[in-house]
Amino acid sequence: MRVYDIIRKKRDNKELSKEEIDFFIDGYSKGNIPDYQASAFLMAVFLNKMNIKETTYLTNAMMNSGEVIDLSKIDGIKVDKHSTGGVGDKTTIALAPIVASLGVPVAKMSGRGLGHTGGTLDKLESIPGFNIEMDSKKFIDSVNEYKIAVCGQTGEIALADKKLYALRDVTATVEDISLISSSIMCKKLASGANSILLDVKTGDGAFMKTLDDSFSLAKSMVDIGNNMGRETIALVTDMSEPLGYSVGNSLEVIEAIETLKGNGPKDFTYLCEILASYMLILAKVVDDFDEGIKNVREVINNKSALNKLKEFIKNQGGDERVVDDYSLFDKASNIVEIKSVKSGYIKSIKAEDIGICAMILGAGREKKEDNLDLSAGIVLNKKVGDYVLEGETLGTMHFNKTEKFEIARDKFINSYEIVDEKVNQNKLIYGIVTKDEIKKY
Amino acid sequence: MRVYDIIRKKRDNKELSKEEIDFFIDGYSKGNIPDYQASAFLMAVFLNKMNIKETTYLTNAMMNSGEVIDLSKIDGIKVDKHSTGGVGDKTTIALAPIVASLGVPVAKMSGRGLGHTGGTLDKLESIPGFNIEMDSKKFIDSVNEYKIAVCGQTGEIALADKKLYALRDVTATVEDISLISSSIMCKKLASGANSILLDVKTGDGAFMKTLDDSFSLAKSMVDIGNNMGRETIALVTDMSEPLGYSVGNSLEVIEAIETLKGNGPKDFTYLCEILASYMLILAKVVDDFDEGIKNVREVINNKSALNKLKEFIKNQGGDERVVDDYSLFDKASNIVEIKSVKSGYIKSIKAEDIGICAMILGAGREKKEDNLDLSAGIVLNKKVGDYVLEGETLGTMHFNKTEKFEIARDKFINSYEIVDEKVNQNKLIYGIVTKDEIKKY
Repeated sequence: MRVYDIIRKKRDNKELSKEEIDFFIDGYSKGNIPDYQASAFLMAVFLNKMNIKETTYLTNAMMNSGEVIDLSKIDGIKVDKHSTGGVGDKTTIALAPIVASLGVPVAKMSGRGLGHTGGTLDKLESIPGFNIEMDSKKFIDSVNEYKIAVCGQTGEIALADKKLYALRDVTATVEDISLISSSIMCKKLASGANSILLDVKTGDGAFMKTLDDSFSLAKSMVDIGNNMGRETIALVTDMSEPLGYSVGNSLEVIEAIETLKGNGPKDFTYLCEILASYMLILAKVVDDFDEGIKNVREVINNKSALNKLKEFIKNQGGDERVVDDYSLFDKASNIVEIKSVKSGYIKSIKAEDIGICAMILGAGREKKEDNLDLSAGIVLNKKVGDYVLEGETLGTMHFNKTEKFEIARDKFINSYEIVDEKVNQNKLIYGIVTKDEIKKY
Repeated sequence: MRVYDIIRKKRDNKELSKEEIDFFIDGYSKGNIPDYQASAFLMAVFLNKMNIKETTYLTNAMMNSGEVIDLSKIDGIKVDKHSTGGVGDKTTIALAPIVASLGVPVAKMSGRGLGHTGGTLDKLESIPGFNIEMDSKKFIDSVNEYKIAVCGQTGEIALADKKLYALRDVTATVEDISLISSSIMCKKLASGANSILLDVKTGDGAFMKTLDDSFSLAKSMVDIGNNMGRETIALVTDMSEPLGYSVGNSLEVIEAIETLKGNGPKDFTYLCEILASYMLILAKVVDDFDEGIKNVREVINNKSALNKLKEFIKNQGGDERVVDDYSLFDKASNIVEIKSVKSGYIKSIKAEDIGICAMILGAGREKKEDNLDLSAGIVLNKKVGDYVLEGETLGTMHFNKTEKFEIARDKFINSYEIVDEKVNQNKLIYGIVTKDEIKKY
């Protein structure tokens, strides 16, 4: 087999076989196929597309290019929830304790944030003492004992994906449904869960800006997962404005804690309830959605979820007292309220720009090597549909490095569109994609 | 400007500007743009195509990536003839002396052969003593004095093309009209001629196998040439069977000499007359085609063209006595007649396979580094339309290395299709493409 012939076949818009895709991924991850042939192949895939059969082969090959985690020593059905990333998306921090408190084993390997969206690991590390490094024995023991553990992805998972992604990034071959879905799914599948719940974000702050693209991505990932023998469901949810009110690491953890206390933002609480309910269904803990929601509300009301969070923090070396005393979090030295320059209804808040503002203030990374300021971020005061008066606070900025404050402030103010006519709130859930159907709400 | 944005623009099927194409070619030839970005770009060009405006910009940028030869010190209108390459195509050897003897300055920089088609330089070097290396002063002085000189392309012409071609070769991005035509034309344009006559070969032994592709390539090159201010005409001519009877370096030179003596093969003689006539038109030496043909036949009949060849050989250090004494050429130690295994009319002779046979016998290069046997080759005895008896000679093989003779012989016999029904000769000229029209015959 020659890589030249594989490139030519995809160039000529023909379907690749499993053997050809395996040959390409194996050769590329081992360095036998040079970057210049891989990038020509990627552009041919980008322009001629892969069908779902090829996409599944690609996912499988990339999954097998690195370590495949064995979670079989953990009792029960392991369900992984994955978000495609958004601004203010602290869902895992609230969701994991909720479902763990209902007996669903949560064995999560998570990543760090890059660009305008934050990562779960960074958020957890804003809890003093919290340690995301653990060996596989402690990881498995923790989940068996407490039903919950979160650790960092080791560098050994899906090696080909890591190498290919870096190449796609510099050759304008990122935004292809097959390449995106296989890249996400190969890592999820290598992480060993039995079932996968996907939260595909859509809108300005998401990777997928349009509803059509978001459903296509959801459909592709659901098909890959089910083709690979893992029950997979995807929700398509709103990311046209930030999720909840808080953006920034410790600020988001505090908001997640508040949610477990029953005081969370309406949109964020609702999203957690729905995602948790589907996780319970995938874990075969409940029979239907309504039963799921009922159970979820119960563990929030009776504080079992909050106590599970404390247990989780303590087990990973963190100071669980933060749950009751937010002053134990690092605090930014500057906290500045940003006022509205006009009165009216908030028509939109550009989520991506809010994410970039938080990044500018120190809450996010522009480059992988950047150090984070875990206390930095933004707390919104108003969301889409709210009425704001001129001079009223739109949001509060938390920051230590003052150099770029003005840039962030102006960007923040400009991210709001304020109009005279009454505006409805954004829809939160756009639809659900399962193996058998695509339901759009 | 960023190469990433240029790749993305072509990926999204948008027209590139002159500045963007210049940036890409300049950056790539200087090593500022890595191969992996260039190959993604090439695949995007391959699949989304370039229009003639972009193709002209690309040609111009590649022309300027190396030395641009100045022929202004040569008197008269310099006309270059370029063939896209075929089996048995010894046209330049006969054509150049014909038009030179009619006062057209021939200042030709030529290349070596690769694969199943031969190069003019290799053919000329089969003449004992012939030297294709000369400095630019001697080159220009020679053309001014004798109207004819042929030298090797220096490595400094169209550097970007050389680098890009090597990359296209391993990334399945060779067979694109824009990329092929710009690659040919940038070198022709850099070689400094005022006008260009293109002989675009079509059929089995040509780079372009179909008539449609051949006319597309001809049209693209003619448009590029004229867009760049050089009068350019293309003929589309047959390469479904070898041109003339001889394939192999010294064998082809002998056939070209015979043609200048008036004893050439009918197809080859006719092609030389037509091409020469168009060169005379482009050089403004004659007013129309008929006048051209008349002049060409005259210099063949009165031996001025033959004498011009002698002058040319002598000036470049060769032994001009070869023209009258073919025994001065190196002779192969084995000369074997190949007999037909059946009787009938010859319906086709696969030109590419004949070229490969000659290559196997030592007349061509499989790899750039291969050494040639200048005496090796094949002389056909029968061509398409001829009737052959079982046991009659189809052709004669000349070779020194005997190891692969059987392979070549079998391939040779199989390249002939012999049928019972009478067969017409192949058409020689399929059409002509000028700035304003495409005429198909």
